[in-house]
Amino acid sequence: MKSFLFIAALPLVSAHIHARAADGIVTPNSFNYTNLGGPLNWYGLNTTANDACAKGTHQSPIDIGTQTVDYAVAGSVNFNVTNVPSAKFENLGSGLEVVITNGSLATNNITYPLAQFHFHTPSEHRVNEEYFPMECHFVFETEAKQIAVVGFLMELSPFGYTTPLFDSVFAHLDDISNAGTYTETGPLDFTGIISHFNKFGVYTYNGSLTTPPCSENVPWFISTEPLWINVQQYRAVKNVLKYNARYTQDTLGQTNLLEVAAKELN
Amino acid sequence: MKSFLFIAALPLVSAHIHARAADGIVTPNSFNYTNLGGPLNWYGLNTTANDACAKGTHQSPIDIGTQTVDYAVAGSVNFNVTNVPSAKFENLGSGLEVVITNGSLATNNITYPLAQFHFHTPSEHRVNEEYFPMECHFVFETEAKQIAVVGFLMELSPFGYTTPLFDSVFAHLDDISNAGTYTETGPLDFTGIISHFNKFGVYTYNGSLTTPPCSENVPWFISTEPLWINVQQYRAVKNVLKYNARYTQDTLGQTNLLEVAAKELN
Repeated sequence: MKSFLFIAALPLVSAHIHARAADGIVTPNSFNYTNLGGPLNWYGLNTTANDACAKGTHQSPIDIGTQTVDYAVAGSVNFNVTNVPSAKFENLGSGLEVVITNGSLATNNITYPLAQFHFHTPSEHRVNEEYFPMECHFVFETEAKQIAVVGFLMELSPFGYTTPLFDSVFAHLDDISNAGTYTETGPLDFTGIISHFNKFGVYTYNGSLTTPPCSENVPWFISTEPLWINVQQYRAVKNVLKYNARYTQDTLGQTNLLEVAAKELN
Repeated sequence: MKSFLFIAALPLVSAHIHARAADGIVTPNSFNYTNLGGPLNWYGLNTTANDACAKGTHQSPIDIGTQTVDYAVAGSVNFNVTNVPSAKFENLGSGLEVVITNGSLATNNITYPLAQFHFHTPSEHRVNEEYFPMECHFVFETEAKQIAVVGFLMELSPFGYTTPLFDSVFAHLDDISNAGTYTETGPLDFTGIISHFNKFGVYTYNGSLTTPPCSENVPWFISTEPLWINVQQYRAVKNVLKYNARYTQDTLGQTNLLEVAAKELN
């Protein structure tokens, strides 16, 4: 396709046009975003483990209404990630994930250690019904399996600018175009996005994982301002991820949309 | 939001930063893409009229597998639209639609007159699982209500290039940011996209409308090569459309995903 030729001609990716071999293999996830592996059948993949995917009433992602959502009070959320020279970067089939644990989220007297961060395209959350081309999720998990997520929407820059962290994350993206492979990122400096998170407001609500098992009681903290990504990087990531956004769930507290559909059909 | 400031600074949109009033009003569609108005509940909105939305087994959009899809034989599809000095451009809430009838699609000994063309973001169809930022549908309908659709995927250009037709279509987009309004496009010259359609291959399959009533027996003809759009135009359109893509349907001929879900849940 023409799109490949354009990507290949750009400096960002051309350094890796002759992809290195992936550094190793990981086990890809069994769920996906297409046909019977996709979100409408995640419950069907495992009706015990994935019960909340079809029956939960506080499921993510949602359409965030800026007039109705809660905002975190400044200083009430402490988002912290330590810079690292590199990290493991995995293609799980269902997503692209950076394994990095030296960070934490502290809020409401709970400190959640960082487990990983990963990407979705297009965005999972919407704001006043509008979606974004990408979304980044930092997932935190305590020993007691309490989970919290910090989210950043990502918007396309018309001037070719990309948040510097993403340049390093995606530096060796070409190595892991196949599900089940991993490589290493470049040096990861989180000071920019932490400053961004602290500077702008934060939407907060109590939702769920957006992937199986769709567990609930997950507090979300989403920056009100998107991070920038440029067209070349977006397209390179999209070409690997293909599509990995769960459809928008019903309003918090309302019947799961799959239960609504099942009731109509039976 | 920062995004608004960037859009406003760009020449494309700045000519219309002080939006004119819309030229008039139209009746917006009652279905949408959020919560109970969205695709999982289109059947629930009208269980008689929208029966196929939840029960059809040849529903669109699909994930087009380039190894398995059919390709239209060169010359077997005659896609024709006459240039016009301007056309009515409507915001139907569910989509942005250009009303233009002086065109036709001739294939399999049937000539379908053009009814309108409209846009989706993100794309509805996927190709080998990958989605695209936008998609354009030319809808043709005979007096006997036989429908056929010509589709173009739209991909972001890293160099700011936009298919010239879209510059004219979206020239007065700012006027119709509210659902239920309409304005006029600039001059519409279709020679470029017709040439594009005829030059590259065409995926073809028998599917459905992607909006209620989701009627089936709709032949699709989708150009294998996307048309270009630039970041500024994409973001301006996305800011108006918000999100209007139906989720990917099950493989052609397989049980509707909503019936699969209902069976699991009951």
